[in-house]
Parts: sequence; C-alpha cells; structure tokens
Amino acid sequence: MSAPRRIGVGMLGYAFMGRAHASAYRTLMSVPQTAAYLPELIGVVGRDAEAAAEAAGRLGFAAGGGDWRALVEDPRIDLFDNSGPNAVHAEPTMAAARAGKHLICEKPLGLEAEQAVAMWSAAEGAGVKHMTAFNYRFVPAVRLARELLSAGRLGEVLHFRARYLQDWLAEAPHSWRLDAATAGSGALGDLGSHLVDLARYLVGEIVGVSARADFRDRRPGAVDAAFQAVVAYRDGASGTLEASRCAPGRKNAMSFEINCEGGTLAFDLERLNELRWSEGGSGFRTVQVTGEDHPFGEWWWPPGHVLGWEHTFVHELAHLLDAIAGDGDVAPHGATFEDGVRAAEVCDAILASHRETREMEVRVNLLTTP
Amino acid sequence: MSAPRRIGVGMLGYAFMGRAHASAYRTLMSVPQTAAYLPELIGVVGRDAEAAAEAAGRLGFAAGGGDWRALVEDPRIDLFDNSGPNAVHAEPTMAAARAGKHLICEKPLGLEAEQAVAMWSAAEGAGVKHMTAFNYRFVPAVRLARELLSAGRLGEVLHFRARYLQDWLAEAPHSWRLDAATAGSGALGDLGSHLVDLARYLVGEIVGVSARADFRDRRPGAVDAAFQAVVAYRDGASGTLEASRCAPGRKNAMSFEINCEGGTLAFDLERLNELRWSEGGSGFRTVQVTGEDHPFGEWWWPPGHVLGWEHTFVHELAHLLDAIAGDGDVAPHGATFEDGVRAAEVCDAILASHRETREMEVRVNLLTTP
Amino acid sequence: MSAPRRIGVGMLGYAFMGRAHASAYRTLMSVPQTAAYLPELIGVVGRDAEAAAEAAGRLGFAAGGGDWRALVEDPRIDLFDNSGPNAVHAEPTMAAARAGKHLICEKPLGLEAEQAVAMWSAAEGAGVKHMTAFNYRFVPAVRLARELLSAGRLGEVLHFRARYLQDWLAEAPHSWRLDAATAGSGALGDLGSHLVDLARYLVGEIVGVSARADFRDRRPGAVDAAFQAVVAYRDGASGTLEASRCAPGRKNAMSFEINCEGGTLAFDLERLNELRWSEGGSGFRTVQVTGEDHPFGEWWWPPGHVLGWEHTFVHELAHLLDAIAGDGDVAPHGATFEDGVRAAEVCDAILASHRETREMEVRVNLLTTP
Amino acid sequence: MSAPRRIGVGMLGYAFMGRAHASAYRTLMSVPQTAAYLPELIGVVGRDAEAAAEAAGRLGFAAGGGDWRALVEDPRIDLFDNSGPNAVHAEPTMAAARAGKHLICEKPLGLEAEQAVAMWSAAEGAGVKHMTAFNYRFVPAVRLARELLSAGRLGEVLHFRARYLQDWLAEAPHSWRLDAATAGSGALGDLGSHLVDLARYLVGEIVGVSARADFRDRRPGAVDAAFQAVVAYRDGASGTLEASRCAPGRKNAMSFEINCEGGTLAFDLERLNELRWSEGGSGFRTVQVTGEDHPFGEWWWPPGHVLGWEHTFVHELAHLLDAIAGDGDVAPHGATFEDGVRAAEVCDAILASHRETREMEVRVNLLTTP
Repeated sequence: MSAPRRIGVGMLGYAFMGRAHASAYRTLMSVPQTAAYLPELIGVVGRDAEAAAEAAGRLGFAAGGGDWRALVEDPRIDLFDNSGPNAVHAEPTMAAARAGKHLICEKPLGLEAEQAVAMWSAAEGAGVKHMTAFNYRFVPAVRLARELLSAGRLGEVLHFRARYLQDWLAEAPHSWRLDAATAGSGALGDLGSHLVDLARYLVGEIVGVSARADFRDRRPGAVDAAFQAVVAYRDGASGTLEASRCAPGRKNAMSFEINCEGGTLAFDLERLNELRWSEGGSGFRTVQVTGEDHPFGEWWWPPGHVLGWEHTFVHELAHLLDAIAGDGDVAPHGATFEDGVRAAEVCDAILASHRETREMEVRVNLLTTP
Repeated sequence: MSAPRRIGVGMLGYAFMGRAHASAYRTLMSVPQTAAYLPELIGVVGRDAEAAAEAAGRLGFAAGGGDWRALVEDPRIDLFDNSGPNAVHAEPTMAAARAGKHLICEKPLGLEAEQAVAMWSAAEGAGVKHMTAFNYRFVPAVRLARELLSAGRLGEVLHFRARYLQDWLAEAPHSWRLDAATAGSGALGDLGSHLVDLARYLVGEIVGVSARADFRDRRPGAVDAAFQAVVAYRDGASGTLEASRCAPGRKNAMSFEINCEGGTLAFDLERLNELRWSEGGSGFRTVQVTGEDHPFGEWWWPPGHVLGWEHTFVHELAHLLDAIAGDGDVAPHGATFEDGVRAAEVCDAILASHRETREMEVRVNLLTTP
Repeated sequence: MSAPRRIGVGMLGYAFMGRAHASAYRTLMSVPQTAAYLPELIGVVGRDAEAAAEAAGRLGFAAGGGDWRALVEDPRIDLFDNSGPNAVHAEPTMAAARAGKHLICEKPLGLEAEQAVAMWSAAEGAGVKHMTAFNYRFVPAVRLARELLSAGRLGEVLHFRARYLQDWLAEAPHSWRLDAATAGSGALGDLGSHLVDLARYLVGEIVGVSARADFRDRRPGAVDAAFQAVVAYRDGASGTLEASRCAPGRKNAMSFEINCEGGTLAFDLERLNELRWSEGGSGFRTVQVTGEDHPFGEWWWPPGHVLGWEHTFVHELAHLLDAIAGDGDVAPHGATFEDGVRAAEVCDAILASHRETREMEVRVNLLTTP
Repeated sequence: MSAPRRIGVGMLGYAFMGRAHASAYRTLMSVPQTAAYLPELIGVVGRDAEAAAEAAGRLGFAAGGGDWRALVEDPRIDLFDNSGPNAVHAEPTMAAARAGKHLICEKPLGLEAEQAVAMWSAAEGAGVKHMTAFNYRFVPAVRLARELLSAGRLGEVLHFRARYLQDWLAEAPHSWRLDAATAGSGALGDLGSHLVDLARYLVGEIVGVSARADFRDRRPGAVDAAFQAVVAYRDGASGTLEASRCAPGRKNAMSFEINCEGGTLAFDLERLNELRWSEGGSGFRTVQVTGEDHPFGEWWWPPGHVLGWEHTFVHELAHLLDAIAGDGDVAPHGATFEDGVRAAEVCDAILASHRETREMEVRVNLLTTP
C-alpha cells in the first residue's frame, strides 16, 4: 500500500459551515475507504484574525489568520475551501482559482447567476477541480434515490415535489427586519437553491417556472420569507418547489417525493437515514439507508447505527479529495460550479416569474467553455 | 320529546357514491344526536330500472326505478340526492329545484363553472336548501382544523399546501385512453375540486392561480392526469395545490399543511382520524380526533375507536337534514351550491392559467342573487 | 338468484356494544357480498324496558322490552346476540342455547374460565353455532396477517409481542374506585382477553405464562389496572403480552409485532387500515389493507378509502350469519365459545402466575365434547 | 481563559467500538463547550501489533502496538479506554486501575456479575474515575426524558417497556453456530444490558424479574438469541424488557415507552433525534431534540440538523473527561462501574429466572465500599 496523497487545505470561514467542514476533514481521516488521500489542514482565515487563530486550534488547522490573499497564494495549499458568508464567495474563490487551487465553495455559489458564471469561468479557465457545496447530494438516501432513478428501475419521472421548511422567522415575528445587504439571501437563495439542485440531480434540467415569492417585509431590500413554484422539466416531468422560513414546527424540514411511472420515492431530511419507497402499487417501505450495500454503508457502522447531518460533509469532501487525488471528475455526483450556476439561473427565473406574474423560461444553454 | 321530523329522500345513482349515501342515511338513524329528524328512503333511480329496483332493496329504499322525472315530482320526497355521474348532475337537479325539493349534489357541481352557476341559480330561485357534497369538510379532523383557525388560536394563515394523490392511472399505463366525454373529469375536477373547496373552507377566497396541467394523453378530449398550481389568497396567504392520478403507492392520499403565524396543522386522509398540530415552535402532536370534545366525538365511540371514510357522509347528510328540519343554514360548515360554483371557477382558472402560461385572476364577484 | 335466507335476531343490550352490533347488522344489508342472508332485527331487551323500547326504534329493531326470557324463547328468533355486560353473559346465553338459538356473546365469554366452560357446554350440547365476539380477528389487516402466516410465507413464528393500552384510568387518578362487583373486569379481562385471542389466532396455543398484575387499588375486590406477561407457545415461539388502562396518550392502542424466521408483521389498532410488513431483511412496508385483493376489500370502496372500528362488526356478524345460513363453521376465522374458554384459561393462568410468582402451565386439554 | 487540561488517552481495541471512541475524541476537540480539557491520543493496542500501528495513524493516535501491559503503565496516560472484546475487559482494566489510571470500559462490564464486581472493587480501591460505556444515556432524547422524569413533571412512573431488536441472526438462519466462548455474549448481554441500564437510569432499581431466554441453538455453550422479562421496580413500577437478534426488519431498534401518572414518553433509537411525548391526555408530540434548549443542543448545529449514533460517544467521553479534568463525578448521568455491576446482576437474575421458571429477586445491596 502506497502512502496517501497529502492535500493541503486552506479554509475561509470558521463559523457554522466552517466548523462543519473542519470536523468532516478530521472524521474522514479515520474512514478506511479514504486511505488514498489525507487532508492537511494548513490554515483558516476570517475577518477577525485573532478569532481565526483561536478557531484554528479547535478545528485542527495548523494556523489561523485574517489574510485570505496570503492563504490563496500559500504554496502548501492545494484546495481552497470557501465556507464564508455569501458576500465573500466570489472574490477569494476567483483569486484562488487564478492561483491554481482546487475549489469548494458553499452555496449559493454567487449572489446571483451572473456572479456565479464569473466564478465558473475562473475555475474552468484555471483548469482546477471545483465543487459547489450542495451537501444534500451526499445524504446516503438521496444518493440511493439517484441510483434507483438512473438505473431506470422506476421508469420515467412524472412528478417531483419538494419543500424546505423552517420556522425561525415565525418564532421571531417582530424581527422580520432582514435585508439583503446585511442578512444575505432569503428563503429562495438559502433553502430554495438546495431544492433546485436536488431537482436537477434527481430529475433533470428545469425549463420553466411559474412562481410567487412572499415578501412579508415590504421595506426595500428585504429578502423573501417564502416562495412557491410550479416547475417544468426538460424531459416532460412537472412538479412544485416551495420553501419557507415561517412554517411553525418545521425545523430543517427538507422533503421531497418523486412519482415515477413504476414507483415513488420519498425523503425527509429530519429523518435523513430513511428512504420511503413504493413499487408495483404496493405501500411505502421505510428503508433505513444504513446497510452495507447502501451508498456509503461500508464507511460506517453496522445497519441501524444512524448517521447525522454532519456525515454529508464527510462524504462530500471525501468525494472532492478523491477527485483531486485521483484526477477524477467531481460530476455527476458532486455539484460543480456549473451546477452552482444553473441553480442560480433557476432561482433568478423564480424571482422574475414572481415579478412578471407569468411562466418564465429558464435558459439552459448559457454556458460555453470560456 | 317530540316525534322526529320525517324527511323523504329520493336518490339518483346507486353505484359507488349512491351506496355511500344510502349507507349513511341508515347509519345516522341510530345516532342519538340526530333524533330530531328521520330520513325516509322513498326511491332510487338509475339508467337501468331493473338494477335500480334490485339496488333499492339492498340500500334500504322502498322502491327503485328508471325515471328520475317521476322521482323529482314525487310529493313524498323532500330531498333530492344526486349521487349520479357528473354528466347527469345539472338537469335532474334543476328539475328537482323547480319542484321545490331540497338538494344535495355530488361534486363537481357542474361540468364547468357556467353549468354550476345555472344550478345555483335554480336552487336559489326555488328557495330550497342546497348542498354540494364536499364531504371532506365533515372529517372530524378537518372540522377541528377549521375551528382552531376560526378561533384565531394560530394567528393569520401564511401558507396552505395540499395535494391529492392516487395511483390507478400509474398502475394502468396503457389505459390512459380516458376522454372527457366518456370518463368524466380528470384529476382537476375529481380530486382538485376537493382541494379547492378545502382551501376556501380553511383559508379563504382564492384570488389568483399559476398552474400547469398534465395532459399525458394528447388525443383531443382527453382529461388531465395531474395538475400543479401556485395559489394566492385574498387575505395574503399563498400556497400550492396539486393532484395526480399517477402517483404510485398513493391510494387516496389527500393531505394538507397549513402554516400560520403561531402554529401548523397537518392532515392526511389515509389517516383520517389524526390531526397533526404544532404550536409555539414545538414538535408536531398527533391528535386522534376521536375524543368526546372533538367534532362529532359524542356521536360515536370511546376515544381511539376510529372512524372511516363513510362517516364523513353520515356527518354531511345529518348536517343537511338538520338544516332542512330546523330551517337552519347549510353554510358555513356545509358547502352550498355557491361553494360548488366557486370551486368550479378556480378549477376553470387553473386550466386557463395552464393554457395561457400566466397567472390568472379568479373572479370572486360572479354571483348575484338571481 | 334465490331469495336471501332471513335470520331473526334478538339482542340483549343496547348500549355501547349493542349499538355497534345493531349498526353492523344494518350496514351489512347493503353489502353485495352478503346477499345470501338477511338479518331481521326482531327484538332488543335490557334491564330498563322503556329505554329498550326507545332504543329499538333508533337501532332498527321491531320491538324492545325488558324480558330476556321471552326473547330467547321467541320462535321468530334464530340468533341470540348477547351484547350485555359481563355479568349477564352466562345465564341468558345458556337459556338461548337450550332454546336452540344460535349464539354470539361479547367477550370475555364468562366471568372466569369455569363459567365460560359451562356456556360452551350448553352451546355444544344444543348443537347451535356459537361465536365469542373477538372482533379484532375481523380487522382486514389482522386477517391478512393470519393469511400470510398460514401460507407459511414468513416461516416459523419466533416472537409475538402485543400490548393494549388505554389511558382513562390515568386521566381519572382519584376514581380508581373500581371493583370487580360493580365495574366488571379489569385490564386483563377487558383488554388482555383480546390479546390472548389474537395470540392464539395468529401464533397458536399458549402453554405457559409468567406474569405480574398491577393492583394499584388495594381494596379487596378491586380490579387490575394493568398486567404484563411473558408467554410461551406450544410450537416454540415466545413473547410478551401487556395491557394497561393508565398509559397516558394511548386511547385504544392495541398493537402487536410478530417476528418470524423470514419476516416481521406489525399492526396498530389506532391505524387499523395499515399493516406494516418486512420481508427478506428490508425495511417495513406500510400496506393500506384497503385493496381489492385484500381481505374484505371487495366489500367496500376503492383503495385508500379507509374503514373504521365499526366495520369489524360488519365482517364478524356477516361471518356468523353466513355460517348459519350456509351451515358452515364459525372456526377458524371466527372465535367460537371454545376460543372464549381458552382465552379465559390463559387469563386465569396470568392471575395465578402473579399470585404465585412463578411460571404457570396453561392446560390446553380441558375441553372434551360434553 | 486558561489552557485546557491535557488528558492522555490509551486505548485497547481499534475495531468497531475503538474506531467510534477514537472518532469521538477527535470530534469533541472542536466542540466549544469542551474547551477546558483536551484528549491526547497517546497509544492504542490490540492483539496484532502491526494492525494496531496501522490503525493508530488512521485513528489519530501517536502510536500503536500489541502490549497492553506497557500501555497501562505508560506515565503519559491518564485515562485507559477499554474498547476491546468482552473477554479482555477485566484483566487490563484492573491493571490500569492499579496503575492509577482513570477508566472507561465497554459494556457489558464483566462476563458476569462476579467479574464486574472485581472490576468495580479495583477501580474504587484505586480511587480513580470509572465509567461503563452505556452510551445510550447520552442520546439527547434520553437525557431529556431523564430530566423530565427527574423534575417530576410527569408524576410517578407506572410502566416501562423496552425492547432492543436486531435481525442479523434471522438473516443468517444456518449460522446460529454461536457459542459463548468464541462469540461473546448473546442478546441478553449485548442488547439486554443496555435496556437494563436505561431502565435503572430512567425508572430506578429493579427488584424482581420473571423471564424466558431463547436458546434456539441447543448445543452446550451456545448463547441466547432472545429473551423476554417482566420486571418489578423498587418504587412500584412494572414493565417488560425484551431483546432479540432475530427480528427481521429491525436493524438497531432499541425503543422504550414510559407511562407515568401524568404523561408518556416514547423513544426509538432508529430515530434517535426524536422524543415522543404525551401529557394531559393529549396525543403524542414528536419533539426533535435538536433545539438550543435541549440537552447538548448548544454543542451542535441549528435546530433540525440531526445527530447520529456516533454523537453519543462524543457526549459520553466529554462527560468523562470533564469529570477527570474538573474532579467531578461520573454519576448520575454517566454509568459508573457500579452501574455496570448492577446491570450484570439483573442480567444474571434473568438467566436464573429462565432456568428456575420463577420470579427471581434481584439483590440490590451487593456492593459495599471495598
């Protein structure tokens, strides 16, 4: 057995997502299936250099600081992991691309499709690996759904309906003082982009949307609290996408149902170890996707020893490191920057449909090799 | 205690819905709470006089025959119950109205809004009681949801999402040879009309729809297999409505979720004794709506002794008989012919939105006293 | 088609169970599958003759009165239905047997095994059909479970665990003033007898029990509030049975799980239309037992149109009437008086095991033809 | 902020449980709430020195080898973690105690109660901290249940019923060639010991058991495949405990229900983020125990971002390290070696009850300070 390929990692951001990524890098080191590569956590940066230094210790990075420009130039770094807020996705990521670093960036890729396209162009132009961190592709049950669909076992997809519901706005009704500048994106960008990516991963390209967005806070610059969309897919399927931050009792309730000619699959992120599955007209089987033969099943524990939300990052980052180490592709199971662009295009079309009160076509031929 | 008021019933149709209505008339006789009135099952008619005579015996009617015109003129009859196919809703019901009979008609009221309006005009003009048989209003859990919403306990409604999924088309992929003339209405009229009525009963008037219908069978005159709609309500709520006859594994899966400012209610017809209910940010309570204090709870058995689909008809018909006997109103808990008209208007707008690929306003001021 | 065989019915009791039976007799009349026989509701009796007369009208009986002795001698009556309280099960039922009437008696059959044996002897001696009203055998999902087990599809039964939980004692903590004389039986006789009967129906004869009963109310003559038992079956299976009247939140929660060599079946009476079913190591399928091919499926409505608790009585009484009309057997799907005896024997052994703090053998060879 | 206390860890075992412990040590380093102490992974040992050295790299230990005697004497080591097979629990753990090391040992503590007592005596005699790794105490939902019960909110416990079901034996029917010498313990020791510990943690001391064990494999020395027990608690509660390795479809299905005077709690390990909870007679609330106010809620992610089985080890080991660093107690939330002894005593009594076919008293006064 040869020594593992060492891959230097530099990260921007040490809060919620940064900690999730960092923990995942460390956990994947002890997974036997990832023995071919080994992440080295070189440095983490943030706005507050001192806090970043403190975080570095906890998160397992060798150093922490405040200068992302130095980080993206650091020759020890092979992979730049942008886990920072949406507003700092574009510039550092594009700089890292120019420095020849492989890339992973949290979602949504850019603040809107145009910015995402620029990031994709930079990455493609530099010839590096690139991943948009749509981590729900790496839920074992979601991967299993994709495998079942790809194998044609259930026939053509007829309908896809997905919703992503949270309730923190409902619990804070007087704090709907959220605006795009300070609070980042609304339900559409934060939650809806996940749904759009899963729709594309599981069903295919979206060609039309008819949508409403809910701007409860009517001040200029306020973000949306919710949206609903009717969606048409290139291959004839149709369905709905919905997200809300004011659905009381729903904590992180991303769920979907896929009706195919020969069966139905259903998933709920709050029970992420389960896939519900009906075939041949019979009732729904609740499958615990923790078996040895299930996606990522051999990486972990005996059947029924459930995984958590964090494991999606272990799978995702391992997939990226494997692509880097083995010179393989991020696609189709990983979302590339192109997938990040396409999700942004659909989100933009949803907003346009809301404004124009009509169905909007989604352009699917935007990208050409830069 | 005075003798119960006897109410003569004449029925058109003895198949699926006719049997359900007939069984309900007999069951409600033994419910102590309905002691003030007593249905007398005078006669049932159908296209096949001999079959109707045979059915009369089984269903508890005194006689059966083939002539609906004689039935609607029969002086012993106080209530005309139209449980026949959609195509024979209008003419016999309007004739019965002219003969001064009280009316109940299965849904959808007419073949489209215009016909429904004519039926409503006839009923209003005759000054009789009239009910459109949207029986799901009489599911105890649905009534409880309405009561909770009306009491303002959960605050303003924000979102309503409902779906009605069946799978018999999916199981018969080669028999999608359904056309409007012979097969009656599609998923929209058959299933969607229930959703629209519940949306109006629970949330309020619908003012706009953006929708797609799925006409998989592309021959002229074919009915829709599914539809999806984004819906706007007069009071600011929004949501989605969807129905499909090709959702494998879903047998009679009408479900909805109502997000309010202060809580969420969720219901699934396949578990019709349960209402799921979240308040104050906490998790969902699964309430068995079979308690003594619950709607219709005193009519039946001790808590936990569950009711079935048929009981909705017992509640519905008792409500109508009570309105007739006591000279009360069918509304608001019963659907009137006006409600039948409004449901048809929304369904028509959904189809128009599909054709025109834009949001359609729903006219809510169509009706004026004839 | 020949005329249906008319079967005169006389009933004792018009309260909870009496109303359930009466409603079932009327409902089964409109079920096409029961066309070969027709119950005629001749008379109902109770302690209060006036109330019985009033009830007769509501319940559809031709007459009501206070004299069960006259009823059981009435030559128009073919079937005596004892839906009265436990204390009046034995004497009227045995008198009806001597008068040559067919018999159905609510459970538990006698106040203890000895009385049940006397009832069985009387019925067998008279050569009439006899049924103990263990109605849960007639839940479609329970029948389906039995069919799957009988067909050997799941292999040998390994474990059976069943519980029957209610909460009305928990909600009335200060009214635990229940004693055997006035309140009838405790959790064991009322709820446990159902579990024992289902255990025997689904698994086989019980040969040993190790049990505790919970006599929270320590006054002499008080009934048990709960019991737990470890059970051994003749064919090698083992398991547990438990019942309680003080399980807060559990309304009528009879549930069981059967582990076989090749699969598991699980059922919950609060969701009586569903059978959960696992085979070949995969997850549990939730089957709605409302399909055309399911037990009693053709009697009712399209798939997914759920049945309620009352339907068990329709199935049960139709089964008995069919046995009477066609001279068939009540067993194996209906519980006979012999099954009533055996359930009583096991319940008695559970109490004995509690008293003697050791495993008690259950005698299974008590009965000999009288 | 002072520097964290460094605690040297030496581990025996690098397979299933060893990897789970190792991963937990590394994950807890990045949890802000555990900043007061820092585990240093000094060494890991196993029977195969080479494999242990290889594992050390993956698991984050500085070194690996084959000599546990050297490990337990290593002065850099403060805590000896015995994650090895049951047969090597006693000797190395007792040696480590004598060397003054703090101790954690996987369950069951000894091969039977007597050995467990010896281990407890050694630990107490040495004055070190000691923990039996009953990790399910550290499921957030279980901790929440304990807190609710301790606060008296639900009143006195009436019943506790728990079951732990797996299916790997059922799937391998011809490989029931398991014997105590090579395969370690059966369902009782492996699964039942968890149930006994949870029963004691949540309800209190067990004083009597009536049980059956299922020795399907009748060869001498074979282990049990399943057991069932009726259990009496010191404070008057009663209930059942059951475990099986041949329950098809059940993967790691540890579930329990606690009926108290004022409410019921229910838990299922296959949905470990949920606690179902009924109070005041109403239905069951499904609470996602992922909120900020929930046990361990602040350690992790926003509400609804679910945890997995591994997180129980993070909580458990952090609890132990905290006790070591702060000189606090392992009890009551951590299981000590005394708890390991008591679990073994109950398991032994269950086997004795099976052999003697009578209720066995459980001695609760065995332990005296050595």
